Parts: sequence; structure tokens; C-alpha cells
Amino acid sequence: MEFRIEKDTMGEVKVPANKLWGAQTERSRNNFKIGASASMPLEVVYGFAYLKKAAAYTNCQLGVLPEEKRDLIATVCDEIVAGKHDDQFPLVIWQTGSGTQSNMNVNEVIANRAHQIAGKTIGEGEKTLQPNDDVNKSQSSNDTFPTGMHIAAYKKLVEVTIPGIQKLHKTLLEKSVEFKDVVKIGRTHLMDATPLTLGQEFSGYASQLEHGLKALDNTLPHLAELALGGTAVGTGINTPKGYAEIVAATIAKFTELPFVTAKNKFEALAAHDAIVESHGALKQLAVSLNKIANDVRMLASGPRSGIGEINIPANEPGSSIMPGKVNPTQCEALTMVCAQVIGNDMAIAVGGMQGHYELNVFKPVMAANFLQSAQLLGDACVSFDEHCAQGIEPNYDVITKQLNNSLMLVTALNPKIGYYKAAEIANTAHKNGTTLKEEALNLGYLTADEFDEWVKPENMVGEK
Amino acid sequence: MEFRIEKDTMGEVKVPANKLWGAQTERSRNNFKIGASASMPLEVVYGFAYLKKAAAYTNCQLGVLPEEKRDLIATVCDEIVAGKHDDQFPLVIWQTGSGTQSNMNVNEVIANRAHQIAGKTIGEGEKTLQPNDDVNKSQSSNDTFPTGMHIAAYKKLVEVTIPGIQKLHKTLLEKSVEFKDVVKIGRTHLMDATPLTLGQEFSGYASQLEHGLKALDNTLPHLAELALGGTAVGTGINTPKGYAEIVAATIAKFTELPFVTAKNKFEALAAHDAIVESHGALKQLAVSLNKIANDVRMLASGPRSGIGEINIPANEPGSSIMPGKVNPTQCEALTMVCAQVIGNDMAIAVGGMQGHYELNVFKPVMAANFLQSAQLLGDACVSFDEHCAQGIEPNYDVITKQLNNSLMLVTALNPKIGYYKAAEIANTAHKNGTTLKEEALNLGYLTADEFDEWVKPENMVGEK
Amino acid sequence: MEFRIEKDTMGEVKVPANKLWGAQTERSRNNFKIGASASMPLEVVYGFAYLKKAAAYTNCQLGVLPEEKRDLIATVCDEIVAGKHDDQFPLVIWQTGSGTQSNMNVNEVIANRAHQIAGKTIGEGEKTLQPNDDVNKSQSSNDTFPTGMHIAAYKKLVEVTIPGIQKLHKTLLEKSVEFKDVVKIGRTHLMDATPLTLGQEFSGYASQLEHGLKALDNTLPHLAELALGGTAVGTGINTPKGYAEIVAATIAKFTELPFVTAKNKFEALAAHDAIVESHGALKQLAVSLNKIANDVRMLASGPRSGIGEINIPANEPGSSIMPGKVNPTQCEALTMVCAQVIGNDMAIAVGGMQGHYELNVFKPVMAANFLQSAQLLGDACVSFDEHCAQGIEPNYDVITKQLNNSLMLVTALNPKIGYYKAAEIANTAHKNGTTLKEEALNLGYLTADEFDEWVKPENMVGEK
Amino acid sequence: MEFRIEKDTMGEVKVPANKLWGAQTERSRNNFKIGASASMPLEVVYGFAYLKKAAAYTNCQLGVLPEEKRDLIATVCDEIVAGKHDDQFPLVIWQTGSGTQSNMNVNEVIANRAHQIAGKTIGEGEKTLQPNDDVNKSQSSNDTFPTGMHIAAYKKLVEVTIPGIQKLHKTLLEKSVEFKDVVKIGRTHLMDATPLTLGQEFSGYASQLEHGLKALDNTLPHLAELALGGTAVGTGINTPKGYAEIVAATIAKFTELPFVTAKNKFEALAAHDAIVESHGALKQLAVSLNKIANDVRMLASGPRSGIGEINIPANEPGSSIMPGKVNPTQCEALTMVCAQVIGNDMAIAVGGMQGHYELNVFKPVMAANFLQSAQLLGDACVSFDEHCAQGIEPNYDVITKQLNNSLMLVTALNPKIGYYKAAEIANTAHKNGTTLKEEALNLGYLTADEFDEWVKPENMVGEK
Repeated sequence: MEFRIEKDTMGEVKVPANKLWGAQTERSRNNFKIGASASMPLEVVYGFAYLKKAAAYTNCQLGVLPEEKRDLIATVCDEIVAGKHDDQFPLVIWQTGSGTQSNMNVNEVIANRAHQIAGKTIGEGEKTLQPNDDVNKSQSSNDTFPTGMHIAAYKKLVEVTIPGIQKLHKTLLEKSVEFKDVVKIGRTHLMDATPLTLGQEFSGYASQLEHGLKALDNTLPHLAELALGGTAVGTGINTPKGYAEIVAATIAKFTELPFVTAKNKFEALAAHDAIVESHGALKQLAVSLNKIANDVRMLASGPRSGIGEINIPANEPGSSIMPGKVNPTQCEALTMVCAQVIGNDMAIAVGGMQGHYELNVFKPVMAANFLQSAQLLGDACVSFDEHCAQGIEPNYDVITKQLNNSLMLVTALNPKIGYYKAAEIANTAHKNGTTLKEEALNLGYLTADEFDEWVKPENMVGEK
Repeated sequence: MEFRIEKDTMGEVKVPANKLWGAQTERSRNNFKIGASASMPLEVVYGFAYLKKAAAYTNCQLGVLPEEKRDLIATVCDEIVAGKHDDQFPLVIWQTGSGTQSNMNVNEVIANRAHQIAGKTIGEGEKTLQPNDDVNKSQSSNDTFPTGMHIAAYKKLVEVTIPGIQKLHKTLLEKSVEFKDVVKIGRTHLMDATPLTLGQEFSGYASQLEHGLKALDNTLPHLAELALGGTAVGTGINTPKGYAEIVAATIAKFTELPFVTAKNKFEALAAHDAIVESHGALKQLAVSLNKIANDVRMLASGPRSGIGEINIPANEPGSSIMPGKVNPTQCEALTMVCAQVIGNDMAIAVGGMQGHYELNVFKPVMAANFLQSAQLLGDACVSFDEHCAQGIEPNYDVITKQLNNSLMLVTALNPKIGYYKAAEIANTAHKNGTTLKEEALNLGYLTADEFDEWVKPENMVGEK
Repeated sequence: MEFRIEKDTMGEVKVPANKLWGAQTERSRNNFKIGASASMPLEVVYGFAYLKKAAAYTNCQLGVLPEEKRDLIATVCDEIVAGKHDDQFPLVIWQTGSGTQSNMNVNEVIANRAHQIAGKTIGEGEKTLQPNDDVNKSQSSNDTFPTGMHIAAYKKLVEVTIPGIQKLHKTLLEKSVEFKDVVKIGRTHLMDATPLTLGQEFSGYASQLEHGLKALDNTLPHLAELALGGTAVGTGINTPKGYAEIVAATIAKFTELPFVTAKNKFEALAAHDAIVESHGALKQLAVSLNKIANDVRMLASGPRSGIGEINIPANEPGSSIMPGKVNPTQCEALTMVCAQVIGNDMAIAVGGMQGHYELNVFKPVMAANFLQSAQLLGDACVSFDEHCAQGIEPNYDVITKQLNNSLMLVTALNPKIGYYKAAEIANTAHKNGTTLKEEALNLGYLTADEFDEWVKPENMVGEK
Repeated sequence: MEFRIEKDTMGEVKVPANKLWGAQTERSRNNFKIGASASMPLEVVYGFAYLKKAAAYTNCQLGVLPEEKRDLIATVCDEIVAGKHDDQFPLVIWQTGSGTQSNMNVNEVIANRAHQIAGKTIGEGEKTLQPNDDVNKSQSSNDTFPTGMHIAAYKKLVEVTIPGIQKLHKTLLEKSVEFKDVVKIGRTHLMDATPLTLGQEFSGYASQLEHGLKALDNTLPHLAELALGGTAVGTGINTPKGYAEIVAATIAKFTELPFVTAKNKFEALAAHDAIVESHGALKQLAVSLNKIANDVRMLASGPRSGIGEINIPANEPGSSIMPGKVNPTQCEALTMVCAQVIGNDMAIAVGGMQGHYELNVFKPVMAANFLQSAQLLGDACVSFDEHCAQGIEPNYDVITKQLNNSLMLVTALNPKIGYYKAAEIANTAHKNGTTLKEEALNLGYLTADEFDEWVKPENMVGEK
């Protein structure tokens, strides 16, 4: 491999000749060989690109950066967001906890790429842009990384997570209407209980996601607060007057998302409670989805010795050894995602709680876990929706048989003959393997007509 | 011990003669000898008392319970809430996961106590109230326990947690004003950084709690939704028309809290995402408070070989062996509470995710963990506030010495002489153990007057 | 209430006249009003009593404490362990993170009680024992609390946790033998699969607990290491030569447990990885037990519309509204305990990871969570064993019906006619709602005799 | 892109013409678009390759597979392990929870590649090997995935994790010797305490890792148990007699690791407690490493306003805005890894606890989290060792100054003049900002000679 020499305040470094990054990126590559390379999420890099462009515009507007430098920076940022330089960001999550080196990676790539755009050869001639003095002007890693992280997190939520969950929610809501007349046995403690409709069951799932989406929505204003303008410790040292507000508004314009400058920059650098808060909502959704997916696979279990009240689509051969077996694989993928999100919530809490003084240095691990959860939840909901939920159908034969067989219909008799007599009927039928009606008549507590009139499953499900 | 005989649908049980509870409570006592007795939080019992009274009023209003029974039930419920029967609830958290037996414990105590109030002897004569048919009328464990749990949780938040956090928040805010002119060295990565004021540092803490309180507030509407009226599986079987709405309004009236009937009763029984959601905010607050308490103890560390920038009150002898040692004990108590709350969040997630079909059977463990977190956070904030935060004072000598000694003031020169020359000055002073000014002049990058004019810590802290 | 005046290095404190504790305990009571009083586990207090007695004997043996003081200390310690002073330890978990005040609580109670035993009145005359100079001789909170914690934890494991799990393990093993010929359908992905015996299923549960007990056993040597002798920072300052080894041996003698002095006292004060390690095994057992209890309740589900392959004991009326319903309440209690233990594991990790320099100050929260988990797991296993596992019976009718109905028996044909033809038979039977045999013959892939010879469930379960 | 047609039991699928995988892999690719593609760890694929080769050898030895098929399978497996087909495994973690499709991916790649090796064109002519009947012979996803997972996990531990931790442990141990005479102030509660040596401090770190390595080692026997031979539900259906033992021995031979067949196959499919157990030890190590890295960064904090007792290597420019700043970046990377591992532990627990009946279907998420933790911990220890720990040097000036300045040396006077007088001296010096000696003489409790003789820090550190 060919190399060129790059310099930073510590001296010279050999950098692969065909790469746009510079000395600090290369140092980080060599100093942090932890896990797979390039694990720092590209979404964070894109978040940086948005903010670098916005900073350039703001600096220019406030008279501290010339227009030609602004335009060069903006051009490269647009290229980065367009995915043209994805292979120029080789750093890992497990680096400086402020993400300093990823900030410098972006600064260096922008400076070197601008040099190319200006028609020059990297490493030769006077630098077109200084990574620190120009690209990083009015910024610090300490305020850029949390800004890039919030941009990435917010975008992921609104572009992937929320639409994915909404899509599944819509299906569940439609199913709750479609199945509104399918009266079936209820189950509590996994045991037979009084009836409800399959539509009601699905309405509960839909309601869970509705509450979860509301909870997630509640967290967005905190996530919309940007640290940029705080620079090194939150005081905004080395920023021109008005910078923080303008740069946030500019980022809002470029991303078309409602970003604002953080009311308190000291918090914004030293704590990432907004990430903790939003991910708390993701964890809540994982808890909900685990419940929903579990129910679906139990309701679909069988084909002959399970619950079998619903059918789910057969998407692939289920077993490499048992022919004819079709498994609830989408439920499994979704619940594995839930396990991951619940674990990630703890990783984020552990990182979030350990900020010291003016800086939290668990930024990259918090960003990476957040983005993974947000992506997986959105994707898994879409996958579960398309390959499972949409195709759910009641298994009418099973539903009807289990409903009519149920001892729990006896509950309808409580207001008529009292709890204790009703219990006696049910207990006797259970013991004898008979029907409620038989035993009700045997015991002489009511007539056949009364039984038929009072014990109607369709009257036991309330408003459908 | 003397006993009397009580009966339920399974037969006879010997119950201590001087106790108000009945057969089902006694069975549970004997069947679940897990951990200390009476671990079920009394707050849940009180929540039950509110709802039993409200149910009695609603049943009466809807014509299914006579007034004298309503009044008897109400009288006992008032006694329970007043703490007069605290020793009548011996059951543990680790029982039926629906809390059925705690529901029956309340039903039995109300029925037996009403019998006493009616002038009769427990176990003799016709029952004044039937635990199931009267006290539990229009109810099921499955909707009462989550209702009692929500009442208990909501009350705890507004009576203990939120006031406690607000109290600490107020102090931190006041300190941020009081310390607004105390310029001190900043620290990032635990390393010396550019200055800020002590007031700014405290404003960050206050801002964290503000965001946390907002996050907690956002969760209250979900927690205000009550399951009551769903009965066994969410359909509201065996409830009179209009019951759910009226009973929620009645509970709201009795508790003076904005409870409403849950929009979806199927969710309200089968999932406790509202508990997950609210506790997520408690976890966020724990994350914030851990950061704050850590900072306080590090800033107060010493007395001679630590950071020592603030003094905290000496509340007790610090060491049984090292005389004169005063420790940040309130910080330690608070961070231990934070550890507990973070652990509880996981217990709640594990419980919340495992609901099956129409019922989540992790109700007691979710309730207990929630209430513990809410109580501990509120109490610990008050304790930390009164015995630590209020007494925090700047250690001016140390602050001034460390500020003037700092190499990071060089950052003020970046816009004047550029990043690289500024770095050279700082690095040289660091190497030689000299001051920035000495090396700035030695290197000839600026004059003494320029240095004095440009490097003013009080100008480096932005708006105070 | 009447009070007496007690003194410590900070001055005078009013203490309830009828209590044995002194000034430092009283300060702590007033300074830490966090949660319920007296939450510090008594097991830790008893652990302290063992070590105080052992320290007195060791100090005496090494010539730094007179025999009469040794004997007074020993007498009170024996009283404490016998539970005679349980109401003299009012402090909470949420105090100094080193547990200093609980150490002083024990010192003060011993000193004052010794004063009584010596025939004097507390608060009058020369002190019979000095809490610091005599009772705490050769000790510091920093080494006593971890020692008391290890004693308490180790005792709890060997007295409650391990016997409880062993008891359940024994039952599961017996059931695996008892059910060794009960051939039933297997289930993977919750779907019908090839057969196995009910005994084999139970042997898996037993094997999980065997591995878990082994894992727990592996952690005992670390837990057997005692910090005592490290005093303030691990150097053993102010201890006589040979003290650490002798005092550990003396504790071992008094407790009849294999305690040894920690090889490295600096670790023993600054980190509590032994607690993290042992609790990791408790968490593993919780994971196992959650699986086992889940299986039991699913296998027992019904009575008519569930899996219904086993019957479990009916211990209490299952529902306050649905008569005749019997619920898997022991499974529910056990899985709630599992949720708690998994949460506690995180609380312990959060505490364990935050030790600083020479001291971890999350000792009380780690101790409390450990002891809760150890007690709950042991108790819950006994409860589950006695009230559920021992009474499990196969429901032969259901098992036979589901077995014979199964499409998965087709797997037996794979080696005979190949995977693809076998799959065709199963798929066709599934589609047509017919039996495997019918379709096998229809498709002409084998004869009736071949089918009967090849498809024998009892031949498909391997070695039983 | 060009495609070819592949078939499975569900019909035809279009597969990219240049890929070795078949129909089932392609279905999975399309059905599970969740997160980045190819997220299933390659280590699991290699684990599969070992076991497929071993299965082929065993099948051949037991007479159910011809030698030429065995050799073809073995040849392709060797190629896979050599990394020649890394791009042929496009599946994600978030698929079937049994990893069925990854098993089929391996089966299909082996079959198609064998076809190539046999000189034929994929998709043309009679199949050289059947993916199911030949490559998967005597196997099921249900026993292969856990086997591949155990092989991958065990290899990762012994090849990456353990050597990485041992390397760091060795350095810490060497430092503990190197620094054995560096007497310094101790700190408890972050406050000044009695002295110890820097070597003693490092010996505590080394001891933590020693215990952690022991704990990890204790888990290896469980991890060495292989599920292979259990096939679909643990009964070993469709395996020749003796298969399980021979195939485990063969895997042991090929991997040179002490694998054995699992004593209980029902557990081995239905639960992955071995993964939970081993990862518990990884979590313990994360807890330890978090403590160690925190101490290092606090001890190195400064350069002028921190603790500053040690110097750590400067590996990169520390700040993009603050020149001359060098940060504890290796500590930050390591503690971020610890946060991840602690989170992963929860993801694994959540997966491990939810096995149902004969199968746990959280296998891929458990495997992926385990492998990530094991890799990151090993790598991070190496990185921290090489770029930080090895370069740690005492800052003698600071250490000496802080030691001599300490009030806690007064503890040495406790045995001489009693706790209360010693406390008075320390308190007075603290109040007056004077030295202990001055106040000791002022108060008249001892002579100057006595002070000099009794208060010698080097005598206060016990055995060094």
C-alpha cells in the first residue's frame, strides 16, 4: 500500500495514500483495534455532515468564514450525506468517549476532499481548508458529537422506527375490526377464562403500540435539543454571538426536522439524558412487542397439539429435519430484537449515568446502541407486519370448538345464581368431563331454557 | 393461638381468631412462604381501599348494591386508608401473579370488619357482606389489582417522588444563581479544560432534573388510566352499564387525582406498559442523579489531596478508624438508590414483557419495584437536599488557585494566534512546569499586554 | 419518649433512653430517612456479630485485648446472633456506602449492652467497653462491612438457597424417572415436533438446576475470602501481626464455614466482585427457573382449551370471579422471583462497577440485593416444590391423544423414504385434516404394514 | 443481476447466479430485512463448518455416509474455516430463533460448492450432495446451532478474551512489583485516607482480573458440552448409535479444544444456560475493568487541577479545540466496552429465560451478544494494555507532596494516644490549615520526637 505523510500537533503520521482522512484518524485506527473496523455508525457521520454544513453557513453569516470556504465545506458535506464517502470513516465505536476522533475524521475528510475539489493533490500545496481552524470553526468534539448523535437518532426514529411501528399498528387495528365478531375463549394465567372476541384481543395489541408511539413522541422535544454552540465545556467559548441559535435553525432547515438549540449547554455536553429518555420509550415498545409476538406464536401453535386459534403465513420450510413444520419465525426474529433492545437500554443507562464534570464520555456507545435499537425495532415491525401480521387469519373451527367447550362460560351465571352455585356447576362438569349445561340441570339450579338464554358467549364480550 | 374456621369454595381453613382476614388469605399465607411476610406494599392495599369504596358507590348508584352495604364498605375502606388495619394484610409479593389473593385479602377484611361494625362476631351469624358477591361486585382481581397498582403508583409519584425531586431541583437552581460569578476550571475527560462558573455547572444539574421531571410528567396520563370495569378479561362481563366510566370518576373524586377509565381494557389487564413507561422516567432520573451526586463528591473530595472545590456539610463522623474524616455520605446513599432504581427497571421490564393472552401475571413484582423506586428517589432527593445540597459552599481559595494555574486558558488564544501556536504554548508550559504567560512571551507569539487582555477567565465563560 | 445523651467526636446526640445504640447510630437515623426504617438486612448484623466476636478472640490471643473485654463482647455477640436485639438495628440500606454507621451501630450496641451486663446503667459511669477502641479494635468499617456481607451471603446460600434448589432438583429428577415411559409429543418453536418422554422433558429441567448448582458452587471460594484485617485501605494498619489469618480462621470456626482471609485486601475493600460473581450464578438459576416454571404452566394450561398434558395441584380458588378456575400460582410466584433476581443482578453490577480508589461505597445495596435474591430463590424453590412440582401428574388421556394425532411422527420416515417424500405426506395430511397413515397409503410411498412398523412413537425417543 | 432457480419443499426461488447458497437462504434474505445484512457472526458459520465436517466423518465411520461424500463435505468445510467463502453467508441475526436458516445456508453452500469441486455447474445435473439428506445427515438445526454457537464461543474465549485479559493482568502484576515502594495517600469515599503503596493499589487490580479469569475458567466445562446428537428435540432421532459421543470427540480433535457431548440433550436444545453462565463471568470482568479504568483515569487526571499521581501515555491530540490536552482515551474505550458487555448480559438473560418446551429460540441473539462481548473485552484489554497500562508511570512529585500533606497520617497515632485525641489533632489541623505535627505539639499530646517516630508513612502500609 502507498502512503502519504500527514501531520497533527503530535507530529507526522503515515496515511494510506488513497484515503481522504488525515493524521488523527489514522492514529485512532492504530490505537483502537477493538472489534470490527468502521463500527462507528454511518448515521452519526451523516449527522456530522449536516452539522458541519450548518456550522459553515452560520460562521459565514456571522462573518467568521469566507463564502468560498463555506461552499467547499457544504459541497463535501452533501457528498457525505449522499453516501459518496462511506469508506472514508474507518473508526470504531470504542475510541475516545467524546467521539473526538470521529469529529476529526469528518474534519479531515472534508478538508482533504475540498483540496481535491479545488483541483489540488492531497498532501501537496497549501491546505485549502484547515480541519481545525476552518471545518471545526466554532465547534468542539464535545458539542459536535452529541449534536451529530441527536440528528442521527432523531432521523432514525422518524424515518425508520416510527413508520415501522405505525405500519404494524395499522395492521393490528385493521385486524381488530376484521375480527370483531370472532367470539373466542379468553385466557388468564394461561387458563381458560371468559370469552372475548379475537378483535378485542388485537385491539389490546394496537392500544399498546398506540401508547408506545405516544411515549416515544413525548421524548422527541428533548432529543430535538442540540448541544452545538456549547463548544468545549458548554460556555460557547470561541463562538460568535448568536451562533448557537442560528446553527440549530440551520440544521433544522437542512434536515427538515424541528431541531432547536439546547436551553442548557452544560447538560447537553455532560449528560445524555435525552438518549436515555428516548431509548426508554424504545424499551417500552420492546416490552410491548414481546408480549404481542408471544401471543401470536402461542395462538398459532400447533398444528394439532397447540392452541391453534389463528393461522400465520408459512414463509419458509420450518425445519431441516421435520417436514411439514411451519414455525412462527417472524415472532422469533421480533422477540430477539426485543431482547436486544432491552439489553441496549441497560448499556445506555450504564453509559448515561457515568458522565463526569463537564463531559459524558460514553457518547459513541450510547449512540451506537440507540441507533441499533431504533433500526431493528423499525425493521422488525415492518418484517413482522408484512410476513406475519397481515396474513393472520382466524382458525374458525378451532375457535368455535374451544369456545363451546369452555367451563368458564359459567361466569355468566354469577349474577343469576350467585358465585358459589356457579362454581359448583363448573367444578362438577370439570370433574365429570361433562358440559356446564348437563351439570346445571343435574344440580337443579336452573332450567335448560334459562341456561340457553343466560349462557350466550356473544353476550359475554361487552361492546365489540 | 386461637383459631376460627373460615370457608371458601375449596373448603374450610383455620384462621387466627383475632384476624380479620378469611380463608383465601390464610391459604395464601400458607402456600407462599417466600421471603419476609407482609411484603405486599401497603400502598397497594390503600389503592384497593379507594377502589373498593368507589366500586361500592358506583354499584349503588347503578342499582346493584343497597345503600347500607355501600356505606359499610365505605366505612371500612376509610379505616384501611387511615392505616387502622395495616396488620391485616399479611401476604407477600410472591403470590399469584394477578394479585388475586391480595384482592381477596381486602375483600375478606372488609366483609369481616363490616360484620364487626354491624355488631356481630366474626364467624357467627349470617354474613353481613359477602366478600365476593358484595365487596368484589362488578370486579375481578384482574382489573382491581392493576387499578390499585395505578392508584398507588400515581399517588406515590405526586406525593413523594415529584415533590422530593422538585425540592432538590429548587436548591440546585438557587445554587446556580448563587454561584454565578464563581469562575472555575472546567473539566472534560476528567482533565483540565476551559473555565466555566460553578453556577453554570449547577445549572446543568438543575436542567437535568427539569428534563427528568418533564419526562416523568409525560408518563402520568398513561398511569392515570384505570383498568377497573374490565373485570376478568377486559370485556367488562358482570358489570352494569356505564360502570367503568363512573367508577373511574369516583376514584378520581376520592383521590383528588385525574384518573380516567382506560380506553382499552384488554391492554389494561394484559400489559402494564404504563408502569414500564413511568418507571422508565424514574430510571432516567436515577441516571441523572447518579451523575450529579458523583460530581458533587468528586468536587468535594479531599480535604487536601482531592479536587476540593466545594465544601459539603459534615453530618456524622466519617470513619470508625480515621479521625477527622468527613465523607460524602449523602452522595453515597443517593447513588445506591440510583443503582437500585436501575436494577428495578430491569425487573419491571422482565415482568412487563411476559404477559400472556388476556393477563399479565407479574403485577405484584412490578408494583413493588415501582413503589420502591418512587419512594426511594423521593426520599433520597429530600435527604440529599437537606443534608448536602443546601449546604454546598464554594471553596474559593482552591477554585482560584486551580483556575489561575490552568493551561487550558490557552484556548482563548485560538482565535487570536491559531490553534497550532496556542497548542505549542500550552505544551511548552506543561513540559517546563511554567505558566502560559511565560511561554507565550518566550515563544514571542504575543506581548504581555496582549496576554493579559486576551486571557481573562471571566471572559471565557459566555453568558453567566 | 425519654432520651439520654450520647457523645461522639462531633458532639452530643439525644438517643431514645430505652435503646442500646449510641450517637452515631442516632445521627444516621436522622440523616437518612430514606424508605422504610431498619431496611439493613439483619443477616448483615448477624455477620457483624460473628466477626466482632472473632475479632475480640483474635485481639485477645494477640495480646491487645484483655480476656474480660473479650468475653463481654462475645456474650453480646452471641445474644445478637440469637436474635435477642433485633430491634436495636434501626438503620437503612441507604446510608454511607461503606456501611460505616451499621458497623458503629453494632459497636455501640455491644458496648452499651456490655455495660448493662456489667451491672451498670447505660450513660452512667465509666464505659465498660469503648465502641471504637475496644469493640472495633483492629477493624475498620471498610473491612468489617465486606466481611459481614460475605458471612451473611455465604450463610444464606448454604442455608437457604442451595438446599431450596436441591429440594426442587430432587423432585424434578424423581419425576424424570417416574415419567420415563410417558411418550408424548415434543414441541419446538411452540409447534408440534417429534416425540419424547415426559421424563426426558423433566430430565432437562433437572439438568439445568444441576448445572446451576455447580455454577453457584464454583463461586463459593471467592465468597469465602474475607476482607477483615485490611482495616482502612487494605494495608492492615493498626492490626497486630498475624491478625488477618487468625481472625478468618476464628470466623470459620464460629460459623463452621470455610472462610479464609482474602489473598488481596486491596481488592477486598475496593471491589466486591465476589458478590457480582455469586449473584451471576443466582441470575443463571433465575433464568433456568423461569424456563422451567413457564413450561410447567404451559403444559398444565387448560383445563379444556390449553395444552393440558400435566395436572398441577389446586392450592387455592383461582379467581374471584371465575368459579372453578385453578391457576398455576406457584409458577407465577417463582417467575416473579426470577424477574426480581434478574433486576437485582443489574443493581449489583451497577454498584460493583463504581468502586473508586481504595473503597467501593455500594456495599449496603449490593448486600441487600444479594440477600434478597438468595432468600427468594431458596424459598420460592421450596414453595414451588411442595405446592406444585411434587404434585405434578401426567394427564394420560390428553398426552396419548395429542401424540397419536401428531403429523411430526412422519420424521420417522425420513431415513426410509427420504426427507422430500416424508414432507409430502405430512403436508398433504395437514392440508386435508387426515392422518399420516391415510396419506402415506394414498400417495403410495409405503404399505400399511410398513407404516405401522416404522412409525412407532416409542421407538422415536432414543434411550429413555 | 443474473439468477438461477433453486428449489426447496415450498417451491422455486430465484437466487443470484454467482452465489453458492440455495433456496432457503434466499427466502430468509427476503423475509428478514432487519438491520444490516450478514449480521450473523462469521464465527458461528465457522463453528458450523467444524461440526459439519465432524458429522460427515462420524456418519462415514458409522456407515451412513460414503467416503467420497465425507471428503467433499470436509474439503468445503476447510475452505469455509479458511475464510474463502465469507461472502456466502448473507443472513442476519434476526431470523428464525433456532438459526435454522443459517444451518441451511451452510448446508446449501457446502452442497453447491461440492458440486463445483466435482466439476459440475451449480443448478445443473444431479446434485452431488443433498443439503438435507447428506450435509445435514444425523443433524437438526436444533442441535447444530447450539453446537456451532458453543464452538464459536469457546474458541473466542480461549483465542481472544482470555489471552487479552491475561496480557493486561501480566502488566498490572508487573506494575504492582515495580511500584511496590511508592508510598502514596490512600483514598476512601474519594477522601484522603491512610497511605498505601502504588504497587498495592495495582495489586488489587491484578487480583480482580485473577479472580475474573478464574470465574471465566470455571464456566468452560459447561460451554464445552455440545448439543450435537440431540437432533430435533433432544432424543437423537435419526442418528446412528454412538453418534453423539463420536461426533463430539471428532469436533474436539478438529478444534483441539476439550469438547464433549452434553450429558443432557434436552437441556442443551431447550436452554442455553452455558451461554448465560459464561457471559456472567464476562460481565464480572466488565465490572472489574470498569473499576480499574476509572481509577486509572482519576489518578491520571490533571495535568494541574486533578489528582495527577500517575502519568499515562499521550497517544493522540486530546481535543479539537483545547491544545495541549491529553485524555485518558483508552480508559474511555474500555469503559464503553464494559457498558456494552453489561447491556449484553441483560440481552442474553432475556433470551435465555424464554425458552419454551424443547427449544430455546433466542439462539442467534444470544450467540451474537456473547461473541461481541468476548471479542470486545479481549481486544479492549490488549488496546488498554499496549496504549495505556504499560506506559503508566508514577508522578513522584505529586505523590510525595500529597502524602506529606495528608491529615490521615494521624491514624498512626490511634494506638498511641487513642482515637479521640487523634481526631482532635486532625480536626484542629484541618480547621487551621496547619500540619498534624504543629497541632500535635500545640495540644501537648506528644513530643516532636514521638511524632517523627510514630508517624512514618512507610510504616503504615503493612507488607509491601
